[in-house]
Amino acid sequence: MTENDAVLAANLAFYRAFAERDFAAMEQLWAKTVPVACTHPGWAPLTDRDDIMESWRAILANPDSPRPACHEEEVFLWGEVALVICAEELPGNRLTASNLFVKEDGAWRLVHHHAGPVFMRQETAQRRPPKARLN
Amino acid sequence: MTENDAVLAANLAFYRAFAERDFAAMEQLWAKTVPVACTHPGWAPLTDRDDIMESWRAILANPDSPRPACHEEEVFLWGEVALVICAEELPGNRLTASNLFVKEDGAWRLVHHHAGPVFMRQETAQRRPPKARLN
Repeated sequence: MTENDAVLAANLAFYRAFAERDFAAMEQLWAKTVPVACTHPGWAPLTDRDDIMESWRAILANPDSPRPACHEEEVFLWGEVALVICAEELPGNRLTASNLFVKEDGAWRLVHHHAGPVFMRQETAQRRPPKARLN
Repeated sequence: MTENDAVLAANLAFYRAFAERDFAAMEQLWAKTVPVACTHPGWAPLTDRDDIMESWRAILANPDSPRPACHEEEVFLWGEVALVICAEELPGNRLTASNLFVKEDGAWRLVHHHAGPVFMRQETAQRRPPKARLN
């Protein structure tokens, strides 16, 4: 398996844990020996591992929480750090996520997740850069 | 200067170029020898350096583009890769940003910028983790 494939597998495991509301799997995916952060859509960033785990526990315990499907992954590798940019597809909605991983004990583990809404379609965004940022 | 300070300085230089609408400075801040990505608020990710520069050129050329101030920076260091999480303060609005840097030719250069809206106040987010993600 290439490093690229290993990172993609870690990213898919994150969305599997999310969709299956499997908190134990989710907890395993996050790095333990280095600092971590998480920016849920619309939320201020969480920068404490316990707060992040508590947020996921609450999200995954909620029967109404979304079950996102992950599409259009792109992997960026810089040595022992990797970024996956991907679309999170939900019924009637679309988010974009940046998921950052580091190699920890030989495995790619999450150190940062930042997801937010997409108001403009990908094709439009790629063809026509914004005249101004949406703020 | 510690690595932490050097990363903070690079992050401040990004917001200075943004606020002063200085495209030449902005272009210099982005890594040239490794892949880069940029997720403007509400937009699908841009993953081509030329597209990213074109987006910044259009944003900075617009006299109505925002002049964000950067607050509450937190630096995360993993070897030659660093993340800054910070608040982007705008008149009547608040965004959260994740800015990723790599060491290139001895300088910290941007490889990814992801900014998005904050709908909930920091204090609330830190105290009460979400019951469900906002989607």
